Amino acid sequence: MSKETIADILRTIPDFPKPGINFIDITPLLQDPKLFAETIDLLSAPYMDSPPDYIAGIESRGFIFGAAMALKLGCGFVPVRKQGKLPAETIQETYDLEYGTATIEIHSDALKSGDKVVLVDDLLATGGTVTATANLIKKLGAEIEAVEFVVELAFLNGREKLPDMKIESLVVIN
Amino acid sequence: MSKETIADILRTIPDFPKPGINFIDITPLLQDPKLFAETIDLLSAPYMDSPPDYIAGIESRGFIFGAAMALKLGCGFVPVRKQGKLPAETIQETYDLEYGTATIEIHSDALKSGDKVVLVDDLLATGGTVTATANLIKKLGAEIEAVEFVVELAFLNGREKLPDMKIESLVVIN
Repeated sequence: MSKETIADILRTIPDFPKPGINFIDITPLLQDPKLFAETIDLLSAPYMDSPPDYIAGIESRGFIFGAAMALKLGCGFVPVRKQGKLPAETIQETYDLEYGTATIEIHSDALKSGDKVVLVDDLLATGGTVTATANLIKKLGAEIEAVEFVVELAFLNGREKLPDMKIESLVVIN
Repeated sequence: MSKETIADILRTIPDFPKPGINFIDITPLLQDPKLFAETIDLLSAPYMDSPPDYIAGIESRGFIFGAAMALKLGCGFVPVRKQGKLPAETIQETYDLEYGTATIEIHSDALKSGDKVVLVDDLLATGGTVTATANLIKKLGAEIEAVEFVVELAFLNGREKLPDMKIESLVVIN
């Protein structure tokens, strides 16, 4: 197993969700038990000796990798969700999309001051969602140790939106 | 740890998502590392000796429990998603809601004939979503060994929609 093997099993779906976009489909990776476990091993490796208090996963694909990491690391899992999905009191962040805006939320009592958090999502593209999520976590007083992605689309320069943050990606597409 | 402890940490949010609905919030369970791990242990226990080929998880909260189960059991994970989210060729099922309809999808190549699948979601309510999901899995020729829920709202009789299926719930609310 290697990072190259994880890269090899990803497939590109042209023109999804709209013409001109090459979508990176992670579902073949999830279907393969060995590569899925290897992915969780690699994402979790930096934290095995000293796990964070929480893994925060971004809806929806971030839930898949984040929940498995939380189980492996023995830490809690905090979901960051699209607007209107979390039932208790939330705080929100709205960010720009190519057309229009999106809003994400976290429960106000999901994290407290000083909590150490590793943030997880499947893909780093332009960085809008992860920047908004990082803002939510900081608003609650928690500390982001690092952000873990399975795939980074480096040509979109999302990493530049988070200059002060440790960002790790298993597969980098240039 | 016991099922009672899992039941105790769930919280009820009145009038969410609309007046008159008491929403069962599972996020406190996810935040607690020991209870989250215990939940995954209990959901996975029937399959440890002979794991299925795949865990199928229903978007979005089913992803959290399903992905962690897939890691624990060493099997693949297949996401069942809301319409328009899966990038490759899909099959769909539409089912009735209280007002209107909803459509869910699975990749056409996610499962093949004879695959053994355990279906997972957080909550069994009226059973509409899980019935539609079971239909998708059967259409691909795969076999559903059982359906696992964290919580069952028994007073909504969702179980009656799936008379021929093995259904297990960790917490039953009457």
